[in-house]
Amino acid sequence: MHVPPEASPALVFETLNAHQRTEALIAAIDLDLFRAVGEGHDDVPSLARRCAASERGTRILCDFLVVSGLLQKEDGRYRHTPTSALFLDPRSPASLASSAKFLGDPMLREPFRRLTEIVRTGCTTLPGDGSVEPEHPAWVEFAHSMAPMMAPMAAPLGSVALDGLDGNVRVLDLAAGHGLFGIEIARQHPGAHVVAVDWAPVLEVAHANARRAGVADRYERLAGSAFDVDFGGPYDIVLLTNFLHHFDWATCVSLLRKVRQVLSPRGRAAALEFVPNDDRVSPPMSAAFALIMLATTRAGDAYTFREYAAMYQEAGFARTEATPIPRAPHTVVTGYLA
Amino acid sequence: MHVPPEASPALVFETLNAHQRTEALIAAIDLDLFRAVGEGHDDVPSLARRCAASERGTRILCDFLVVSGLLQKEDGRYRHTPTSALFLDPRSPASLASSAKFLGDPMLREPFRRLTEIVRTGCTTLPGDGSVEPEHPAWVEFAHSMAPMMAPMAAPLGSVALDGLDGNVRVLDLAAGHGLFGIEIARQHPGAHVVAVDWAPVLEVAHANARRAGVADRYERLAGSAFDVDFGGPYDIVLLTNFLHHFDWATCVSLLRKVRQVLSPRGRAAALEFVPNDDRVSPPMSAAFALIMLATTRAGDAYTFREYAAMYQEAGFARTEATPIPRAPHTVVTGYLA
Repeated sequence: MHVPPEASPALVFETLNAHQRTEALIAAIDLDLFRAVGEGHDDVPSLARRCAASERGTRILCDFLVVSGLLQKEDGRYRHTPTSALFLDPRSPASLASSAKFLGDPMLREPFRRLTEIVRTGCTTLPGDGSVEPEHPAWVEFAHSMAPMMAPMAAPLGSVALDGLDGNVRVLDLAAGHGLFGIEIARQHPGAHVVAVDWAPVLEVAHANARRAGVADRYERLAGSAFDVDFGGPYDIVLLTNFLHHFDWATCVSLLRKVRQVLSPRGRAAALEFVPNDDRVSPPMSAAFALIMLATTRAGDAYTFREYAAMYQEAGFARTEATPIPRAPHTVVTGYLA
Repeated sequence: MHVPPEASPALVFETLNAHQRTEALIAAIDLDLFRAVGEGHDDVPSLARRCAASERGTRILCDFLVVSGLLQKEDGRYRHTPTSALFLDPRSPASLASSAKFLGDPMLREPFRRLTEIVRTGCTTLPGDGSVEPEHPAWVEFAHSMAPMMAPMAAPLGSVALDGLDGNVRVLDLAAGHGLFGIEIARQHPGAHVVAVDWAPVLEVAHANARRAGVADRYERLAGSAFDVDFGGPYDIVLLTNFLHHFDWATCVSLLRKVRQVLSPRGRAAALEFVPNDDRVSPPMSAAFALIMLATTRAGDAYTFREYAAMYQEAGFARTEATPIPRAPHTVVTGYLA
């Protein structure tokens, strides 16, 4: 049998075992292994002691993490890679360890184990509206835990949203979650006043973050669903961060229409999104995001820029612009009234 | 905050989502999607119809598989990659689709969801001896399903094992499973006579394979555990394929000692194994294999060549040689009496 050199059984094997990489990272975070490495514990006995784990388990887990690029090993001693030092050591200000708790949440992973059924029906196996079911507890957890992963996006999003605006700027932050995006705008612009919309328990988290950032006096809470609550207004900026992808086209358009009605003439809506190219298979992270929407929502998607632009247009916006966030899978898709 | 260019939050994100690649591949195999692509169905409506699946689910799954390198897409049409054509289309003689059923088996994956606990204790959460518990049903499934993944290893292993032998060659195939390795030796050498050892229900599978290969008249079954059964002998070749890695050092040595006692003076034991380098973190697939042994056995491991050589020596063998199998993560580790 002829096997072309580009055909690889290793890719099949590696894909079948890929779940182990997820489990290994979650276990290492649970065991606080990355903190131990950062503290200088660098051999198996010392790491095992520090993590209250077995030596066999610690050695095999650490070696596996080296293979996965999340630790390095030299002369039998383990140390951080640049990635693990910055993003996995809980002592690092950029640590994503808490985000892992969210992405590794068994509730959000469970549907993937029923993916065959989900592909057949085209709809999540989670009850109701899936992860966007009203008051879903996942989003309190999201607000708590995903802030670190989202933080690097806040500054670039803030610049795009504020571009060309001065004086008093009214900001509506829809599905605010941890609130970081609205808070960043308040920090970047002293004239900004933010109204944050989300379910009440989620807004607790956002408000605490606003207090910590010293902008609580310009931070207002409006509890409820973005679909139901009266926004008031007018606003110069409406933020829709990691939100539209959960819904079908018609729902997105109707929400954008509601947003347009509360925008000032100089106003703009800024959506932070995973935006694949028109081919829907690149860039990899944005394109792959669609599977999460398939597994956990009724009709969400990773929409292309062309699709978002069409939604904005259908909702009455004058023009749409895309601003990719450097070194992140996200793009700001901004709709302008003028 | 300074972020060194080699630090990548994407790697963390990608690792946390890696389990989705496993689920997507298993779902695609379940839905018989790779057969549909091979038959020429190349757009979403036609693939969805053929797989009795939704269009939304089919589109998102296919795009995800493109991102994963397991399909390609051009002008909105899907087709096989060289890898999926050869190894995932069930119509291909090299199809690994059935092996995926084994590697994706929920029973064998379940311990990975308890990896934190396993690293703490150093021992599988599976009952008893884990995957090597006597008469474990997984190995009947293994015998049925893993033959395609193992087939490319059989010819190179056969050459190594037979090297320098002629005339009547007695072969003992321990934990024979699907039996392919002993059967291949019988095919390569008409003077070879094979005795296959495994649990009785597994030997049914091996014997059916021997019949299909036309070597059943030189194929004998010896039901029982390799640790308990009387091997008879003497033998010129003893095969230990994908077996030693399940056990601790002492168990391996005692089995090799039992093997040595039934070898003829020209005899050799040939172990097919995942053999990482001394650093235990390369090559990636062999090194990563240790995690499977951690998760599913009490004391198994991916032993290095140095360790296997020491075990062979401790068991009374004169010398040990390593022969890596081309384009596979396996190595033949052969112990010789002379």
